[in-house]
Amino acid sequence: MDTIIKSLKFDEKGLIPAVVQDWKDNAVLMVAYMNKEAVKRTLKTKKATFWSRSRQSFWVKGESSGNIQKVKEFYYDCDGDCILIKVQQIGGAACHTGHRSCFFTKVTSAGNTKTVGKKLFDPEKVYKKTK
Amino acid sequence: MDTIIKSLKFDEKGLIPAVVQDWKDNAVLMVAYMNKEAVKRTLKTKKATFWSRSRQSFWVKGESSGNIQKVKEFYYDCDGDCILIKVQQIGGAACHTGHRSCFFTKVTSAGNTKTVGKKLFDPEKVYKKTK
Repeated sequence: MDTIIKSLKFDEKGLIPAVVQDWKDNAVLMVAYMNKEAVKRTLKTKKATFWSRSRQSFWVKGESSGNIQKVKEFYYDCDGDCILIKVQQIGGAACHTGHRSCFFTKVTSAGNTKTVGKKLFDPEKVYKKTK
Repeated sequence: MDTIIKSLKFDEKGLIPAVVQDWKDNAVLMVAYMNKEAVKRTLKTKKATFWSRSRQSFWVKGESSGNIQKVKEFYYDCDGDCILIKVQQIGGAACHTGHRSCFFTKVTSAGNTKTVGKKLFDPEKVYKKTK
């Protein structure tokens, strides 16, 4: 574990980006950030665990929605400054909007945008009200 | 173009990460960074263009090796803080090491690493000597 951590380059905030890919068809589901402890927890528990920059706390992906990500494969890049994990996405959707992938906004050749893919769940029904 | 730029969130260094995926089989080839001008150039020229953090200069991917990336699709994520491009990788290899993908280091279940995938070119023969 320590060898892996030493091979990674964390930025000045102690973070490294992690690309999350579906292990079945290689769709990119999301990109989030890990710190050293999040990397350790991800490797140990096999559940994708990030550091939430907005909440400044550990974030086990899916802990609210139930849509956890079971880590099947773990890679890092030639510079050691980016992680790639291939996961089994429980519930099918990774995005908090209900979309399968966070990358549902496509730029068209005319320079506009269009939404691609259907919503797999209604966020209103999945997330607990906090207000 | 301006609408797209306004939808994106650049970090305090003016950068946004971009995941580069092969449009044929969705393999993740690399992750690099763009600034506003690199986004514009990428959208305009359809050649993946980044901002090199190490060289502090624009970087048309493949300008040295000939292995340019023709941009087929351009997405951004739900938060607008990450880009995903699907490209046709000329020459087959995206990594400066000669590997197809920069993510050729896989962490094994035992916590060791192994190199996956063959090298597609010899960097010594592709890059011009600069010393």
